[in-house]
Amino acid sequence: MKTTSLHIGTRPLKQKQQKRLDAFLQQLRVDADHFLGYPCTREFDYSPLYPFLSMPLNNVGDPFIESRYHLNTHEYEREVIDFFTELLHAKEETWGYITNGGTEGNMYGIYLAREIYPDALLYYSEATHYSVPKILRMLHARNIMVKSQSNGEIDYQDLAETIRIHRDIPAIIFANIGTTMTGAVDNLDKIKLIIKDLAITQFYIHCDAALGGMILPFVDKSQPFDFSADVDSISISGHKMIGSPIPCGLALAKKTHVDRISRSVEYIGTLDTTVTGSRNAITPLFLWYAIHSKGKTGFKEICQHCITIADYAIKRFADCGIKAWRNPNSITVVFPRQKEAVLAKWQIATQNELAHIITMPHVKTSHIDRFINDISQAKKKEAA
Amino acid sequence: MKTTSLHIGTRPLKQKQQKRLDAFLQQLRVDADHFLGYPCTREFDYSPLYPFLSMPLNNVGDPFIESRYHLNTHEYEREVIDFFTELLHAKEETWGYITNGGTEGNMYGIYLAREIYPDALLYYSEATHYSVPKILRMLHARNIMVKSQSNGEIDYQDLAETIRIHRDIPAIIFANIGTTMTGAVDNLDKIKLIIKDLAITQFYIHCDAALGGMILPFVDKSQPFDFSADVDSISISGHKMIGSPIPCGLALAKKTHVDRISRSVEYIGTLDTTVTGSRNAITPLFLWYAIHSKGKTGFKEICQHCITIADYAIKRFADCGIKAWRNPNSITVVFPRQKEAVLAKWQIATQNELAHIITMPHVKTSHIDRFINDISQAKKKEAA
Repeated sequence: MKTTSLHIGTRPLKQKQQKRLDAFLQQLRVDADHFLGYPCTREFDYSPLYPFLSMPLNNVGDPFIESRYHLNTHEYEREVIDFFTELLHAKEETWGYITNGGTEGNMYGIYLAREIYPDALLYYSEATHYSVPKILRMLHARNIMVKSQSNGEIDYQDLAETIRIHRDIPAIIFANIGTTMTGAVDNLDKIKLIIKDLAITQFYIHCDAALGGMILPFVDKSQPFDFSADVDSISISGHKMIGSPIPCGLALAKKTHVDRISRSVEYIGTLDTTVTGSRNAITPLFLWYAIHSKGKTGFKEICQHCITIADYAIKRFADCGIKAWRNPNSITVVFPRQKEAVLAKWQIATQNELAHIITMPHVKTSHIDRFINDISQAKKKEAA
Repeated sequence: MKTTSLHIGTRPLKQKQQKRLDAFLQQLRVDADHFLGYPCTREFDYSPLYPFLSMPLNNVGDPFIESRYHLNTHEYEREVIDFFTELLHAKEETWGYITNGGTEGNMYGIYLAREIYPDALLYYSEATHYSVPKILRMLHARNIMVKSQSNGEIDYQDLAETIRIHRDIPAIIFANIGTTMTGAVDNLDKIKLIIKDLAITQFYIHCDAALGGMILPFVDKSQPFDFSADVDSISISGHKMIGSPIPCGLALAKKTHVDRISRSVEYIGTLDTTVTGSRNAITPLFLWYAIHSKGKTGFKEICQHCITIADYAIKRFADCGIKAWRNPNSITVVFPRQKEAVLAKWQIATQNELAHIITMPHVKTSHIDRFINDISQAKKKEAA
């Protein structure tokens, strides 16, 4: 029989299509220079790893179990997990894997909690990320939304009163370690005091530390948020502070919890411990590369730089007569909503009357200056 | 204040680490040449798209609604969806998005079905992919596993008898369009006849067409599986037949079903209709590129080539005294389990006494010859 030619059925792109792609890339580069509103850094360069993209890599299943599918980066994934296990002060044995991002990490934590306490009520503040109500609905997890304070932190009084009414059932706390809109950190000491005060012995704490989980380990006076605060599971994003062209994240949990669902999964015929089966094997390699080319020292330098820029922004807003503020150890600078054209140009997220910029590692003082200048110009235009 | 240096906190990799990565890449290339057991092609080259990996792209939220996060490839994602909408003969309005792979696509279909019929029973065969029981457990979806026939197709008699016992509640059918182990296609005509015969008016059909969804549109006599067979949702993998270094897939459903679960989310200025919030924006670009560089003609050529190679493999097995077989329109060649060393070398998945190779586009007659030769040698060694 005839020999197979490589790339059977493939033709080069039509010139029109190639031109369209080229123009699109140029437009993205312009937009990337006006990128202040979302917690994703664009300060990364993984080009040395591109050769790995020539193969059908797949980190299918549990990274800690050898796979028959050899084209995987499980080994590197485990080292990333190990780095975070130490960074997050795991005292007892933990288990984790690299997810497709925050939704999967939070889904994993809530799934574990629901399996352990099927009848529990999950408590979360109204400042919680918009994906969480969707996850709760998908997982049929009973829940009550609690009020937030004006800075975005959970309202502890409302939390205490709400739990008190339901003292007869286990409590699952979904804690924000940096809320989406204002970067507020729910105070785990206060939350645990409430639980203790109500003599609730069956409880589970999951931390959504999407952004905060890569800031708090590198500041001098961190709020409690990790395994040293005896939380049960944590979700951290990889594409936010570390940086990645593809959304990714980490799900980490106490091993005893994971074993409970592994066992039940085994009962129905598989040992499938991750939410997603076939899994991205490139992002673990990106994260591994970032960890080794930056290290704890590098990350600390980056975080301190981001905080400096955040304070610079607050000062520049003040010069301009606008009251901007940030929560402790947060790089989310909150200010009153501005003119739509400026918000659109700089890709600024809003919620009601609030707006924010997030001084991620790629944000320079020159970006802040240009942004503040645009706001001033828009104001002058309106006044004229 | 001092100017920010680019790549703050970053140092080059240590030489030892760089050497380790280089050796790893070489090992992967060797393993990639012994890749017969999984339904993923390694016949792709997306290197012209690598420049897009320099930015924090994110297809957050619904691809059909403009996002405040400009660094997205929603436009290209929509064109991929459009291609499949036509390919899968959508008669009424459909909606879809590009997922992280089969788990998310099947989760999406089951989630829609459960929301529409919360008390329904979901029926699926024992040959169904191992991730489905996990999804059902996560989503608290009531379900019954039905027997399979020896070729992997669902046992229609068992299905009919099982549904008959539960005629009082709606039925969700999870149909396999190419089972994992034997590439069997559940016969939707027979299934719909069973439903009609039992006078069940409330039902939902989801098709797991991970591999089959990119084969059946290109064969001369296809089994029914798409919207022309009036199914409600379909999941197809992108990294299998089309090819991608990162797992991905498509979730497609009737628009009326999706409207029931979507809700407005101000923060991202879009609708949170997708399972994953932050989403991979590179894989939609990969799929768009593949569609435009191959087209329907190219895909047809590829599928016919794969079937030819599958038949070549069956013949070569027969020459060697081994009975191998495949289901109609399947490129999964099933044969009795062989010696472990050979299975491990060629990354062959097994289930009880069955093994399979899948003649994906990268598989050449020379791979088959070498594989069969290894089997013969192992047999001779044992006999000696």
